[in-house]
Amino acid sequence: MKLTRRTFFRNAAIGGAAAAITGDVALADAPLGQIPFAQANGQLPGRPELYALRDGEGEHHLIGGHVATLIARPQDTGGDCQAAVLTGSMEAGLPLHRHDETEEALYVMAGRLELHLDGKVHLLTAGDYAYVPAGTVHGYRMKSWRTRVLTWSIGSGLAGFYEALGAPFSRPVQPDAPDLTIGQDRLDAAAQVADVTWAGDLPAAEPVLVTERGVPGERRPYVLMEGEGERLVAADQLFSFLQTSASTDGSFFSVMTEGPAGHPIPWHYHKHHTENFFCLEGRMTLWVNGQELTLHPGDFCQVTAGTVHSYRLDTPYTKFFGWLVPAVFEPFFRYIGDPTDIHVFPVEPPAFRFDRVMAHMDELDLNVLVVHD
Amino acid sequence: MKLTRRTFFRNAAIGGAAAAITGDVALADAPLGQIPFAQANGQLPGRPELYALRDGEGEHHLIGGHVATLIARPQDTGGDCQAAVLTGSMEAGLPLHRHDETEEALYVMAGRLELHLDGKVHLLTAGDYAYVPAGTVHGYRMKSWRTRVLTWSIGSGLAGFYEALGAPFSRPVQPDAPDLTIGQDRLDAAAQVADVTWAGDLPAAEPVLVTERGVPGERRPYVLMEGEGERLVAADQLFSFLQTSASTDGSFFSVMTEGPAGHPIPWHYHKHHTENFFCLEGRMTLWVNGQELTLHPGDFCQVTAGTVHSYRLDTPYTKFFGWLVPAVFEPFFRYIGDPTDIHVFPVEPPAFRFDRVMAHMDELDLNVLVVHD
Repeated sequence: MKLTRRTFFRNAAIGGAAAAITGDVALADAPLGQIPFAQANGQLPGRPELYALRDGEGEHHLIGGHVATLIARPQDTGGDCQAAVLTGSMEAGLPLHRHDETEEALYVMAGRLELHLDGKVHLLTAGDYAYVPAGTVHGYRMKSWRTRVLTWSIGSGLAGFYEALGAPFSRPVQPDAPDLTIGQDRLDAAAQVADVTWAGDLPAAEPVLVTERGVPGERRPYVLMEGEGERLVAADQLFSFLQTSASTDGSFFSVMTEGPAGHPIPWHYHKHHTENFFCLEGRMTLWVNGQELTLHPGDFCQVTAGTVHSYRLDTPYTKFFGWLVPAVFEPFFRYIGDPTDIHVFPVEPPAFRFDRVMAHMDELDLNVLVVHD
Repeated sequence: MKLTRRTFFRNAAIGGAAAAITGDVALADAPLGQIPFAQANGQLPGRPELYALRDGEGEHHLIGGHVATLIARPQDTGGDCQAAVLTGSMEAGLPLHRHDETEEALYVMAGRLELHLDGKVHLLTAGDYAYVPAGTVHGYRMKSWRTRVLTWSIGSGLAGFYEALGAPFSRPVQPDAPDLTIGQDRLDAAAQVADVTWAGDLPAAEPVLVTERGVPGERRPYVLMEGEGERLVAADQLFSFLQTSASTDGSFFSVMTEGPAGHPIPWHYHKHHTENFFCLEGRMTLWVNGQELTLHPGDFCQVTAGTVHSYRLDTPYTKFFGWLVPAVFEPFFRYIGDPTDIHVFPVEPPAFRFDRVMAHMDELDLNVLVVHD
C-alpha cells in the first residue's frame, strides 16, 4: 500500500478499530486491547500505566500557603519522572535549595513567578519556561494572586518531597488565609526522604522580566520567554522545543505544539519513551488505545510506551505542551518539521513531509499503524 | 412558599421546565419560549438578542499585523456596547488616539501588553485590567508572541472602527509574517466612520509593570493588577469588581467571579440590563431560556434583558468575567456579598445571604423564578 497523507488521515479517522489494524509499515506488536484505558477520574494509578487527569485533579499537598497538586508520582511513571501543578498567591514559595542528582523544569501557566536560579533572579510571566539542572541552587516566590506553575523532575529523586514538605489538602487552590511559613521540621523531613539540600532564605531582590530567547546547546540553567525556543513548522502545526536533548544529555526534552483545528495525526505507538500531554489552550481530542478523550486547558494524559495513540486539534487556536522521557524522539520532529523563524502556525501550510520520517523509520522509536485498503 | 437556599437550588436544578414555572417572588412576565435560544455557531446575530460564541469565533479583521475578532457589534447589542478580542504578536498595536465620546476598557487574557494611557506607560500581563474614559489619549503595543486582549467600548461610537482600520481575515490568529504598518488611509477611514482622533505614534518607552490595586471612586483612567479590585465573598464564590458604577457614572461595571464546582444559582432574569459572560478558566454551565450551554475558556454569551438564566461552576477552579450594561445591578452584589480582603474563594464558605437580596428586591433589576412546591 502506498503511504500517503490522505491514507494516514483516513486510517486515523477510523479510530478504535484496533481489531482490524495491521501494519505494512511496522506491524503493531503491542498487545492491543490488553493495555488499560486512560481513566480521567482524579485518581493516580499507583503503577506506570496510561491515565488522564482533569484540570485540578491529583493529590493535593499544602506547603507554606501554596498547593502542590501531584499529577504524576514516580510510582505512576515507572520512575521516569514526577510532575506537579503548584498553585498559590502572593509571596508563597520555597526557600533556596538544590537537588544534587535530580534535574527539574517548570512552565508558568498563570500569574507571575520570581525565580532565583543559580544566583540570578528572574520574573517569569505566563508562558515562560525554566530549566534547573541537578546541583543548581534555586527557589521561588509567587508574585501574583493566582500563580500556577507546571513543574516536573526526572527520575525518582524527588519522590516524597512534596508529601514531606506539606500536609494533605482538600483542593487544588490555596487557602483564603494562607500561612506562608514552612517549619524547619518540614524542611528536615523533606531532606530526609528526597534529594534536596536547603540553602537558606530567598534574598530580597528586584527580579528581571524574562526576555531570553535561546535554548542552550549544553546542560546549564536557563529561562525562556513565552513563544520562544527552537521552532519547526510541520504542515499546519508549529512545534517549539523549549528544551532539547542536548541540554539534558538525553534525559528528556520539551515541546510546545500549536495549531488550528485540523486532521488527526497517524495512529502510532512508541516502545522506548513516554509522552506527557498537557493541554494549555483550546480543545483537542486524544485517542489512546481506542478510547477518545477530549482535553481542555489543564487536562493531562500520560501516554506510556506501548499505547496506540493519535490526536487532533479542534479549535482555531489549540496549544498543548509535552515533556517526553527519555529524549529519544526528538529526531522525529526534526524530520517532519522545517526550521522556522515564525512565531505562529502558518496561514499557508507547507507540505506534510511524512516521507522524510519514513526514510528514517529505522532510527526512530516510532511504530505507525496502517489499515490495509 | 418559604424561600430557602435549598428550595432555590432544587428549583434551579429543574432547568428547562419553563412551562411549569410561576413565581411567588416575582411572577415571570417574560414571554418564555418566545425568546430565541443562544446560538453558538460563530455567527453574529445582527440584532440585539441572546447569543453565544465559542473561543475564536466572531468576525475577524486584520489590522497592522494583529487581529480584532469582533464578538459583539453595536447592532448585536442594541447599541449597548461593542466587544472584540485582539490577538497578535510582538510590536503589533495601535498608535496614540482618543475617543471623545466613547469609553472603553480592556482585560489581558494572555501575554504582555504595553499600554500608553494618559501619558503613562504600563506593562500589563495576563489578568491585568485597564479603563480608558472618553477623551483619554491611549495606544498599545503587544510585547509577547501570543498576546490576547478582551476589549469593549460602551455605546455605538466605535461602530465601524475595526472594519475601517483593517481588512477581513480568515482566522482569529495573526499571520505568521505580520505587516505591522497601518496605512494613513486606514487611519483616516476609521476617523471618518468612528469616534476616534489620532494623536501620533507611540513614543519609545520603558513600561512599568502593573501593580496597582484600587478601583477609583470617580471617573478617571486606571490600571489594575490581576486578582485586585473591590472584593466580596458570597457563600463559595468570590466576586471582584474590576470596575464600579462610581468610576463609569453608571454606564457599566465589571465583575470577576471565581469559585469551585458548586450548585446552580437561582433562575432569574433582568429587565433593564444586559450581562456579558466570558469564561476564562475551568468550565461552567449556563442555562439560558431553558437551553444548556457549557462554557470553556474563551467562550462568550450575551445574556440580554428578558433572558431567564442561571449558571453553575463545574471545576475545582472556575473563573469568568462579566461586564454589565448599564450598571444598575451592582447593588445586588453588595447585598449578597460581604466585603473581604481575601484573594481566593474561601475554604469555609460563609452563609448564603439571599435574605439580604430579598429585603431589597424592590430596588433591584431582578426577577427570580420559583417553582411552587
